[in-house]
Amino acid sequence: MKYVWLDCDPGHDDATAIMLAVQCPQVKLLGVSTVHGNASADNTNSNAARCLYAFAAPEHIRVCPGANKPLIRPERHDPEIHGLDGLGGVEGLPPADTEGVQARLVAHGTPVRALEGMAKAISETWNNGQGNKVTMVSSGPMTNIALFVSVYPDLLEGIEEFVFMGGGVGVGNRSASAEFNILCDPEAAQIVLDVPTKKTMIPLNVTHTAIVTRSILSRLLAPDSSPAPIGGPLPKATTPLRHMLSTLIGFFADSYKSTFGFIDGPPLHDALTIAYVAQPELFSCRRFRVDVELSGTHTAGETVVDIWSYRACDESWGRNGKNCMVAESLNVEKFFELFLDCIARCDAVSPLNK
Amino acid sequence: MKYVWLDCDPGHDDATAIMLAVQCPQVKLLGVSTVHGNASADNTNSNAARCLYAFAAPEHIRVCPGANKPLIRPERHDPEIHGLDGLGGVEGLPPADTEGVQARLVAHGTPVRALEGMAKAISETWNNGQGNKVTMVSSGPMTNIALFVSVYPDLLEGIEEFVFMGGGVGVGNRSASAEFNILCDPEAAQIVLDVPTKKTMIPLNVTHTAIVTRSILSRLLAPDSSPAPIGGPLPKATTPLRHMLSTLIGFFADSYKSTFGFIDGPPLHDALTIAYVAQPELFSCRRFRVDVELSGTHTAGETVVDIWSYRACDESWGRNGKNCMVAESLNVEKFFELFLDCIARCDAVSPLNK
Amino acid sequence: MKYVWLDCDPGHDDATAIMLAVQCPQVKLLGVSTVHGNASADNTNSNAARCLYAFAAPEHIRVCPGANKPLIRPERHDPEIHGLDGLGGVEGLPPADTEGVQARLVAHGTPVRALEGMAKAISETWNNGQGNKVTMVSSGPMTNIALFVSVYPDLLEGIEEFVFMGGGVGVGNRSASAEFNILCDPEAAQIVLDVPTKKTMIPLNVTHTAIVTRSILSRLLAPDSSPAPIGGPLPKATTPLRHMLSTLIGFFADSYKSTFGFIDGPPLHDALTIAYVAQPELFSCRRFRVDVELSGTHTAGETVVDIWSYRACDESWGRNGKNCMVAESLNVEKFFELFLDCIARCDAVSPLNK
Amino acid sequence: MKYVWLDCDPGHDDATAIMLAVQCPQVKLLGVSTVHGNASADNTNSNAARCLYAFAAPEHIRVCPGANKPLIRPERHDPEIHGLDGLGGVEGLPPADTEGVQARLVAHGTPVRALEGMAKAISETWNNGQGNKVTMVSSGPMTNIALFVSVYPDLLEGIEEFVFMGGGVGVGNRSASAEFNILCDPEAAQIVLDVPTKKTMIPLNVTHTAIVTRSILSRLLAPDSSPAPIGGPLPKATTPLRHMLSTLIGFFADSYKSTFGFIDGPPLHDALTIAYVAQPELFSCRRFRVDVELSGTHTAGETVVDIWSYRACDESWGRNGKNCMVAESLNVEKFFELFLDCIARCDAVSPLNK
Repeated sequence: MKYVWLDCDPGHDDATAIMLAVQCPQVKLLGVSTVHGNASADNTNSNAARCLYAFAAPEHIRVCPGANKPLIRPERHDPEIHGLDGLGGVEGLPPADTEGVQARLVAHGTPVRALEGMAKAISETWNNGQGNKVTMVSSGPMTNIALFVSVYPDLLEGIEEFVFMGGGVGVGNRSASAEFNILCDPEAAQIVLDVPTKKTMIPLNVTHTAIVTRSILSRLLAPDSSPAPIGGPLPKATTPLRHMLSTLIGFFADSYKSTFGFIDGPPLHDALTIAYVAQPELFSCRRFRVDVELSGTHTAGETVVDIWSYRACDESWGRNGKNCMVAESLNVEKFFELFLDCIARCDAVSPLNK
Repeated sequence: MKYVWLDCDPGHDDATAIMLAVQCPQVKLLGVSTVHGNASADNTNSNAARCLYAFAAPEHIRVCPGANKPLIRPERHDPEIHGLDGLGGVEGLPPADTEGVQARLVAHGTPVRALEGMAKAISETWNNGQGNKVTMVSSGPMTNIALFVSVYPDLLEGIEEFVFMGGGVGVGNRSASAEFNILCDPEAAQIVLDVPTKKTMIPLNVTHTAIVTRSILSRLLAPDSSPAPIGGPLPKATTPLRHMLSTLIGFFADSYKSTFGFIDGPPLHDALTIAYVAQPELFSCRRFRVDVELSGTHTAGETVVDIWSYRACDESWGRNGKNCMVAESLNVEKFFELFLDCIARCDAVSPLNK
Repeated sequence: MKYVWLDCDPGHDDATAIMLAVQCPQVKLLGVSTVHGNASADNTNSNAARCLYAFAAPEHIRVCPGANKPLIRPERHDPEIHGLDGLGGVEGLPPADTEGVQARLVAHGTPVRALEGMAKAISETWNNGQGNKVTMVSSGPMTNIALFVSVYPDLLEGIEEFVFMGGGVGVGNRSASAEFNILCDPEAAQIVLDVPTKKTMIPLNVTHTAIVTRSILSRLLAPDSSPAPIGGPLPKATTPLRHMLSTLIGFFADSYKSTFGFIDGPPLHDALTIAYVAQPELFSCRRFRVDVELSGTHTAGETVVDIWSYRACDESWGRNGKNCMVAESLNVEKFFELFLDCIARCDAVSPLNK
Repeated sequence: MKYVWLDCDPGHDDATAIMLAVQCPQVKLLGVSTVHGNASADNTNSNAARCLYAFAAPEHIRVCPGANKPLIRPERHDPEIHGLDGLGGVEGLPPADTEGVQARLVAHGTPVRALEGMAKAISETWNNGQGNKVTMVSSGPMTNIALFVSVYPDLLEGIEEFVFMGGGVGVGNRSASAEFNILCDPEAAQIVLDVPTKKTMIPLNVTHTAIVTRSILSRLLAPDSSPAPIGGPLPKATTPLRHMLSTLIGFFADSYKSTFGFIDGPPLHDALTIAYVAQPELFSCRRFRVDVELSGTHTAGETVVDIWSYRACDESWGRNGKNCMVAESLNVEKFFELFLDCIARCDAVSPLNK
């Protein structure tokens, strides 16, 4: 069993990460915090609460609001990809003022609850070594995580691993060379990369292989129907949850087609973080020195993966070591099996289906 | 009355800032936190406790330990100026394991208490607008302050002003163009400079005028004796406190002579922060846009003061505004009157004199 | 017919570029200049002369010596790949003091002859619009080319295209993100990229597909013999020229195996520049904005290819335009046919075979 | 006798530098080249010719046109200070199409004549060690000089010293931290600073002391009249040359008053370069490591003078040495005596007075 804290900025693919975090049998979700990123911190906070409700997370899990801007750089959002509120085009997901959703919110205010939430979860779970270590998962800009490790360095001993979706090996998406999550707060990413604890990076190179094709979408809509004929209509969603998810995938597919030219379907970036925690055997990874370019004119926010081992490194995971496992490939088929299995599990309990 | 939190890294001149913060009648000291800088975080923490004891701070004031390294950059200390433990050469200051000093320490540990201390002091003092605003004073690298404003942005409403010793206008001391406090954690300084709250910077240009000359030192040692003849011996210290302070000044004088060629005496950098809070009329200041160079090959850590007003600025104190008052001159004579007055006041209550 | 000036730093693969430039029927070689890079400027100059002799270039073609260091950065060479003198391990290539080789040298001295040579060749060939435009080919650091376009901007009208081997799209070889030629003199590369004339870049992504496999090597050694059995011995070289070239390829293969892990054979980077000039139909290219990162901590020298078209560009080839054609793929088979054809043609005339 | 080449971008103060170069008895002017800067390269070229004519330079001295843009950065001019054509507001200076002015122009065209002119002047003057070394003076952006030393490194042996007006020690004028000449082409300045030949920098700190006060202006207008009473009218110019110069100073005074708040008069920056060559005893200088910041966000173009000697340096004037003499003070009175003497000398020969 993996004990997981999820820091996210939903975001369509973050929503699927939340679904996996709630439904994966190998994962015990301790809590969720939110951060600026795909949309404003207020929106990502509401969206996470909406997801926790829809995916039937345990009652005690509430969304802890976190940083509403990067450490140093100006804030940036991504309405072109995620719509204005971060979950554009999603049908059937109750709005933030729904009673069940409200119950998932921690009131905004003093102090940033994300750090309090993380600190409490780790302290209790680790219990000074009597308990279990926690895996910190990030599917958005790493501002909250960076602040956490800076303020609570003593709690690193209770952390098993940091897993984050972000960066690329020679590829970016929101600049010529940088990926969105890292580009939003490059300094935060570097702070986390320098922490002397294991990290695993799920880069664009891998997430771009997790494409929700028409065939996957067909199975998502109606798991038991035969494959939709090419060019023919897709099946109808068999449950409200599946309808909601299919509209989510549909909006994301349209965004990725018009913005990045993805014609086979959208990549499910963030879901891979939880998939990695649940079933690491689906991934092959190698350990490298990874740094974030903080000062380049054209390359700020680029993750520089030292594939030729030019930098002399020690054995640590920290500032002077080969500091990061980098995912290099994914068993795509098995990932989507896991994904569809979790939807099936969710189908049985989601309040949307009641 | 000014309500003051002091974040420091003692450090010889920080020690004099603590003395002023405790003894200035215009200042109510709410608390003290420490940060890496002139020496390791452990040493600066002990040193602050030693100072609080020696200067007879109110019993309830304890030293809150803070960050032991910069946000992103490698740690650096300054043993050449301050000795290995940050208060090299100081005679008659009880060591950290003295009972009275121990009583001033908060146990190190989870979490970084500096932020907790600041948050509690501001919340209670401000009391949701029913009470008083707090002046946040920094005499070391601004790591703690930067973390505080990032984690508790909602508490900015309870802050009157940030006052910091650091930077220079076209002058540095620990690189060709950067001053030590800023150089230690340039990103932290920029974070604080971008906060939408008033700031006042006390730069090297001004601190280099606050020289403890032989004449000042003579008055410090023996306030009522006539001036020591040129070339003749200095008077004997009239109290143990004055002896302690004179050895502190003496070590600092030697450092500044051998390292920077100051022949008339050492500059009392950090003491000016509290002097500014207590008697702002001693300073003339002008408002400018100030940024920290974060990416230069030769200029990282330089404070760039936009004296020609090239940058278009709005009215705010924040990211897009003329964000900082910069001290341009000091009434040196009146400053040393204040300084010597505080020593006299301290003389009456210091446990060193008992 | 393409009129070509070749600026190079031989270097094993540069040597093959010279061979192609001399023997390709579609190319009229106007002159050769040399630059610091794979080895010192003195060595690359000698090596180019040795190649011109061995490949039987027309008598009037001499090597014009160029810059012996980058514009701004410290000099770097690559003995790990090319040996100390730039053509390590090559057997049967006459040394620099051979009479025939000496005849190919222009005496070093005042001024940098490379620029004079280029200016004369272009002026005469272009002949104020009465003649033909010249293709400027670069297979080394672009110091000479950058100086040329800075000093003779008026001669750009006589230039058809700049073709250079260098850079990569998300891949480097001599740093985590930079390719050797660009890394040696990034500022020079940017100067050339900003010239308002067409440019074509042959990046690592493509050159890494031009692998001299065992099968190719077998045909190089003995064009008419049947393929060497797997694991069996390679055929003997049928001529001294072929022996020389096989030792050149062999040394380069060993370098690439031990340094970069290329197990199938070495990539013939520089030869592709001339292949592109001679038979552009072997390549598919797309036009992008390309810049060189000049200031990154980790990414200096990286070629930033704006594959997502984030930068707003005008129609020009210059500072504000989509300034560069980038080769994206190569017809590998046809390239090696061209390569082996040129060797055959060279076999008939090389003084090595006499 | 000093043999001098002057590279300039007139510019009001450049004009006074030309006047000194022509009239100082200690200086033998070998030639003049022009560069983009205060105005376009075309304008600075015309302006230099107009000055050579007006100041009665020897007939054989013509203006060699040089680079019309910086090496890498976009071009910038300074019409706010110098007017649109570089010599705004100057009365009585014949326009470019005057016959006598035309005679001073070298036809623009292939190649950049500035480099040819410099190379020829140095070769002939130095004469392989049989003759005299040349002092290269720069009063504008250093593009031409940087190209010259890159293309003709072998001619450095014929150069005694590079003298340039540019930069500041902790002070800028056209950005918060950079001086105009260096800011225009920082890479060029760094290239020159790294040349292994002596350099002397005349920074803003010193040029800002060479103020043409009302008293100086009065003596310029009418050398023999008694001082103009305070608040009273200035005397009439006694010659057409003096009238021209007084309007030049007047326009420059207005620019400096409105842009930089200089109320006592304008600083005669560029004239100090020739004054230094003619009478070095007027200056006190110290040798430092000087670099140009090429990559800072806020500090690009800043001259970083290592006043605390942090950088380990060898004995050379080059890349790894204390590479530059930096002027620290000027005998202002004697400088203006020299200046007024040269005007007097010019008065006797200027065609304006005929």
